[in-house]
Amino acid sequence: MPTALTFAQLSDHPTEFLKLQHYAKPSPGPDEVLIRMLASPINPQDLMVLAGKYPVKPHHTQGDEAVPGYDGVGEVIQRGGQVTRLTVGQWVIPKQHGQGTWRSHAVVHESSLICVSNNLDFKFAAVLKMCVTPAYLLLEDMRSLKPGDWILQNAASGLIGRMVVQFARVKGLRSINIVRDREDGQATAKMKDTLRELGADLVLTETEISELKEPLSNGRRIMLGLDAVFGAPGAVLAAQLSPNATYVNYGSLGTASSCFELTQESIFWKQITFKNFRLSTCLNARSGEEITDMIGWFVKLHQGGLLSAKDVDLVCWNVCEAEASREDLEVHLKRAVSKAAGRNVGEAKKTIFRFDYCQH
Amino acid sequence: MPTALTFAQLSDHPTEFLKLQHYAKPSPGPDEVLIRMLASPINPQDLMVLAGKYPVKPHHTQGDEAVPGYDGVGEVIQRGGQVTRLTVGQWVIPKQHGQGTWRSHAVVHESSLICVSNNLDFKFAAVLKMCVTPAYLLLEDMRSLKPGDWILQNAASGLIGRMVVQFARVKGLRSINIVRDREDGQATAKMKDTLRELGADLVLTETEISELKEPLSNGRRIMLGLDAVFGAPGAVLAAQLSPNATYVNYGSLGTASSCFELTQESIFWKQITFKNFRLSTCLNARSGEEITDMIGWFVKLHQGGLLSAKDVDLVCWNVCEAEASREDLEVHLKRAVSKAAGRNVGEAKKTIFRFDYCQH
Repeated sequence: MPTALTFAQLSDHPTEFLKLQHYAKPSPGPDEVLIRMLASPINPQDLMVLAGKYPVKPHHTQGDEAVPGYDGVGEVIQRGGQVTRLTVGQWVIPKQHGQGTWRSHAVVHESSLICVSNNLDFKFAAVLKMCVTPAYLLLEDMRSLKPGDWILQNAASGLIGRMVVQFARVKGLRSINIVRDREDGQATAKMKDTLRELGADLVLTETEISELKEPLSNGRRIMLGLDAVFGAPGAVLAAQLSPNATYVNYGSLGTASSCFELTQESIFWKQITFKNFRLSTCLNARSGEEITDMIGWFVKLHQGGLLSAKDVDLVCWNVCEAEASREDLEVHLKRAVSKAAGRNVGEAKKTIFRFDYCQH
Repeated sequence: MPTALTFAQLSDHPTEFLKLQHYAKPSPGPDEVLIRMLASPINPQDLMVLAGKYPVKPHHTQGDEAVPGYDGVGEVIQRGGQVTRLTVGQWVIPKQHGQGTWRSHAVVHESSLICVSNNLDFKFAAVLKMCVTPAYLLLEDMRSLKPGDWILQNAASGLIGRMVVQFARVKGLRSINIVRDREDGQATAKMKDTLRELGADLVLTETEISELKEPLSNGRRIMLGLDAVFGAPGAVLAAQLSPNATYVNYGSLGTASSCFELTQESIFWKQITFKNFRLSTCLNARSGEEITDMIGWFVKLHQGGLLSAKDVDLVCWNVCEAEASREDLEVHLKRAVSKAAGRNVGEAKKTIFRFDYCQH
């Protein structure tokens, strides 16, 4: 039976009001399709939605409660009579924000979906919209960058951070990547290796940044700073940028009310521009066709081995009626959300719900 | 005899190393002209130059000491043999930063000068480059603005502020203008009237801003904030902007080492972009012909009554040999600089050196 995670109230504890609902399999209208989700990630943005700290609210409700989840990949299993573009079996990802992907079955308007290739790694497909796309747009829309320019980012070991590393390489840019200090040197070394294998030119821990003998911008044009943390780590990042660089804030999980000092050194002398990245703004500046082509290009890069989404945690979302009791599944899924929320930004693996339909 | 103010060392006290030098009247080379200055303003930027806090340094030296003064209007009195564009009697203003206008006589390359009409108010001509031009570019180059948009500025009673008010009206924009509280209510009322006559839609004192019952952005699209002060007043200004607005810092006299807090409220929720304005950057993005045409348009606006530079303090710079002793003149000019430096940004009248050549 179809299931959905829903929430009735906002809370800083993301699972406080989260509950699992069963519902009857819906039927698509004339220009709609019924999809079953194959995989949906737990993104920092989803946790912000649950806390009421994300600008775009969920659009879909189930039993008067909102359905979270803004990314994922589904498969068309039924189509309305006037649907022309989509066929049964087609893989799709959401076009708009807020479609509610933390549910097994969804009826969606044909025009709200983007087709992706069916023989794609489902883990990569599930993060196309909220991890791959932002990483690309962060390097594309925030300022012009020239081959050989450096970008500096924190939270580099997160999935968006890893995508940024890979896109930087694709664009001929070089990246300096700040990661949090791991509990032991071996874990730190392993994370550095992972990022270097993806194309990172330089990986530094927060401790190493604080112990630098000279500015990172000596001999490097660090023209873009990507700050997923804000607060003190954001200020550290801003201070390392080259003159005329652009600082971009694109996340602040857990520190949404913090701030840092805008100095004369950075704004007047170094002429740094401070701005925010908002995915919906960048997407709204593109036509549907342009977005589809952009996603198609990401898929090609992935198939060519230039973009990967490895190292994810899969959490089984059992949709087999016979096997799962509602209570057990709810506990299981909420535990996964709690665990994801307990981590720091960019610290650990991405969690992805993997829907299991058994024989259905 | 020609005289120049020069300085040998930087100081936070602008007149500490300022001295008056006499020098022989120079002769122009083949593609140069000799000009005599008619009027040169004392701008905040000049005081920053004397303190070493302005990005562009003076280019011209006299007796191994730098000549300050970045704006003014002069008259061609002699031309080199290969000069084609300029004739004797032509009024000119500097094209580049740092030409050193606090001197009576200057030999300048023909290409470093912009011609202006000879029947212009000399006070307006003397502030074309460093007051009129920045005001225009602040409204033109920092972001796109649509008719009906509001701009919010502080230091509004300064000359750049007044020019901003007038250009806003020319562009169909509306302006909210913050002025410092005057010593008495009558002086405040008079300043408000002055700005309203220039086209200000709203004039508020800093006290009035702090006592607002609701945000200024209620019912207004305040898309551009112009901050000439930085520090706490800059933060007050930034907090009043509408979502998606642009905050621009363009000056910080006396507070060059201060800072203010960049908040999540403004950068993440309201998506405000924070950037700096630099005149030289905007000018470098334009061809010489474009700059000449731009200045020509300002002159037309002035002649049409849409731009004025009234309420200035004229300080006589006596270049009549018979009448001025060097020591008296030096004391007189330095006193004018001290007085200008003692004022707060946007607080008082602009001081302009008016060169007096008597019968010469």
